[in-house]
Amino acid sequence: MSQKKTDRREFLKRSAAVAGAVGLGAVKPALGQDTPVAPEPGAFIRGSDEMTAYGSRSRFVDSVRIPHGGRESPDSFGLDFHIATPLQDSVGEITPSSLHYMGTTRGSFVPDIDPDEHRLMVHGMVDNPIVFSMEDLKRMPSVTRNHFIECAGNRSRSSHTTIQQTHGMTSNAEWTGVLLSTVLKEAGVHADADWVVAEGVEEVKGASSIPMTKAMDDCLLCYGMNGEPVRPQQGFPLRLLAPGFEGIFNVKWLRRIKVVDEYYMTYNDFGHLTRDPVNAALGYQIGPKSVITYPSGSQQLPGAGFYEIGGLAWSGGGRVSRVEISTDGGRSWKDADIRGTAHPMAHTRFSYEWEWDGSECELQSRCIDEIGQIQPSRQQALDFWSTDGERATFVKGQDNSIQPWRIASDGSVHNAIS
Amino acid sequence: MSQKKTDRREFLKRSAAVAGAVGLGAVKPALGQDTPVAPEPGAFIRGSDEMTAYGSRSRFVDSVRIPHGGRESPDSFGLDFHIATPLQDSVGEITPSSLHYMGTTRGSFVPDIDPDEHRLMVHGMVDNPIVFSMEDLKRMPSVTRNHFIECAGNRSRSSHTTIQQTHGMTSNAEWTGVLLSTVLKEAGVHADADWVVAEGVEEVKGASSIPMTKAMDDCLLCYGMNGEPVRPQQGFPLRLLAPGFEGIFNVKWLRRIKVVDEYYMTYNDFGHLTRDPVNAALGYQIGPKSVITYPSGSQQLPGAGFYEIGGLAWSGGGRVSRVEISTDGGRSWKDADIRGTAHPMAHTRFSYEWEWDGSECELQSRCIDEIGQIQPSRQQALDFWSTDGERATFVKGQDNSIQPWRIASDGSVHNAIS
Repeated sequence: MSQKKTDRREFLKRSAAVAGAVGLGAVKPALGQDTPVAPEPGAFIRGSDEMTAYGSRSRFVDSVRIPHGGRESPDSFGLDFHIATPLQDSVGEITPSSLHYMGTTRGSFVPDIDPDEHRLMVHGMVDNPIVFSMEDLKRMPSVTRNHFIECAGNRSRSSHTTIQQTHGMTSNAEWTGVLLSTVLKEAGVHADADWVVAEGVEEVKGASSIPMTKAMDDCLLCYGMNGEPVRPQQGFPLRLLAPGFEGIFNVKWLRRIKVVDEYYMTYNDFGHLTRDPVNAALGYQIGPKSVITYPSGSQQLPGAGFYEIGGLAWSGGGRVSRVEISTDGGRSWKDADIRGTAHPMAHTRFSYEWEWDGSECELQSRCIDEIGQIQPSRQQALDFWSTDGERATFVKGQDNSIQPWRIASDGSVHNAIS
Repeated sequence: MSQKKTDRREFLKRSAAVAGAVGLGAVKPALGQDTPVAPEPGAFIRGSDEMTAYGSRSRFVDSVRIPHGGRESPDSFGLDFHIATPLQDSVGEITPSSLHYMGTTRGSFVPDIDPDEHRLMVHGMVDNPIVFSMEDLKRMPSVTRNHFIECAGNRSRSSHTTIQQTHGMTSNAEWTGVLLSTVLKEAGVHADADWVVAEGVEEVKGASSIPMTKAMDDCLLCYGMNGEPVRPQQGFPLRLLAPGFEGIFNVKWLRRIKVVDEYYMTYNDFGHLTRDPVNAALGYQIGPKSVITYPSGSQQLPGAGFYEIGGLAWSGGGRVSRVEISTDGGRSWKDADIRGTAHPMAHTRFSYEWEWDGSECELQSRCIDEIGQIQPSRQQALDFWSTDGERATFVKGQDNSIQPWRIASDGSVHNAIS
């Protein structure tokens, strides 16, 4: 710690020295005789009606989403629309709604829904089938919670160079809505109804089967996201949130909840195709996962010295209870600091103060959640896939294995998975 | 409570009955033989490069900020640029960055700053004056916290009809940055330095004096807001956050922190003009405050029945510990439910389940914070202003008094302050 302190002082001294070389051409004195070193801005933008209504970001900020999986355009397959969030630029825990990742099940179109016309039907094995307008739902008791969503296909490949490619299919938002349990209790669920099927307004309707225990626990019917109506790409005007479950269960443009007594095999089951409904249900939950956002692939460290390693951790199993960091390729581990509040099933920011000596090394992070699950190594994940034949034949399922970033001696950062 | 339960069932029954009248013209069957009642959307929007980069809200959502104080345009006085957030549409606790309230100290212009050129200078009574680039600051240990900001002039007048007019000059965001104390400790503050003065890039530089105890406690140098860089209207690329202090202390476009040994009387002091620096310092902190966002002024209740009263509470004194609701004009009070996590100096969502019998009534909310401060009645506030002559002569200071909303028997909602 005292070594760290010294290093940080050195860093600060260098900063001061560098700053001395900054040109002071256009500055004016203020607050007496001192001279601020920040130049006067090149321009001032006059207040306008347009600026008043709905503000926008700085023209100097150009962080954007990209098509997922290295495709050239978002719908180059003509099948879906998967776009990845720029985690390399993330700060804090919320993902801005404009940058939230998105995936459609099939079909590269976003429905344009008039909320006044939209309805949610709750029916099937219930005493009282009910149809809700959006106004009806907004009058009901609501909750607000931070939750991540992650696509089951969010996985790192050796061809990926940036964290946006390796991990960009997860995001985190403040969600507001009505507990699904509130609605189901009022409808009166039959004792032998073990599943709900949720359906959205999508070309294949986005139907997914959810166990009744989950539906009655923490699922949300969300109309609010980051303080305003859910965005069209996230399901406007209504989205189901199944906290911690694979992205596909968080049905967008939700229009129907059917209470049933069996698992429905639908078009959405490609991610965990199995003949056994128990296994299917067990495969829904996102495992403990984390990734270092800085430094991450394709970034560049300016040189040896003090750095704050930063990243995000999350788990479908509950709160993140600990994050560990390795700076030697997984041989030794130390605790990172958890920043802010670790909410259940939510991105949790961690950081770790690190002095880089300038030699090549490999950074890794590892998430441990409140139910004791530990993020697996890549080798553990590969072993699992090779033995779990049924899952492996169709798709490799979730990949929550540890992401290694290699720092080269020139400060460049590289994806180190093989 | 069982009465409430019955009422809610009645509400739900009515919803189901109403839904029966919804036209089913265009719908198609799905999931077997059932018929969803949500109409198919009028259109699907095809995925595009533009949609990929940075998403936007639905064309059916038109919530916007308005000029503060009933002005016709944001800068109709040619002096400043004050715009109010649409609290009537708020959900959850975060204010979307595009709708965050804004006030300039003087001058109706927003500086257009290149972050690569921007610098923060920390100097004055310190051992080591330091100049930071934005990259320097981003490499330092960071924190992420939810905090509100509120303009000291955020007050209800009898001429105001909506909550956007009465309370729209406060907002809440997830802020990320470096603790000011981290920077001050590295600079080495002299023992006899009791104040810092913060200066922004504004026409009058936005300088404010902050007591050293506050500067060393929880002030933040923020570069992140709601998961992306701070927006230009909120101080891009760097804003000082003085949690719980009047808005004017949260200096935007921050370029300078000077450590000094006296209170600086600057152009910013119009809100708490006094010859006594102790009194000045005591006047900085926003008192405990709350407002019911639904139902609020100019909204319309569709009729007698079950409602969730919802609103926001906050205090410069710390966490909100309790919110009370009166539905009889302040004669009796009952506890509201606190939703989510009550963060220190942050908007906190509350709700209260209410059965409206259809007769005229007056709704009020009252905030109690963790240090025991209680939001005053309007009469208490008026009494305070009439006795505190020095403050009252210039401006009436903060107004954190209780906001009453009158519900007329036709369901219309009115500002009930006199």
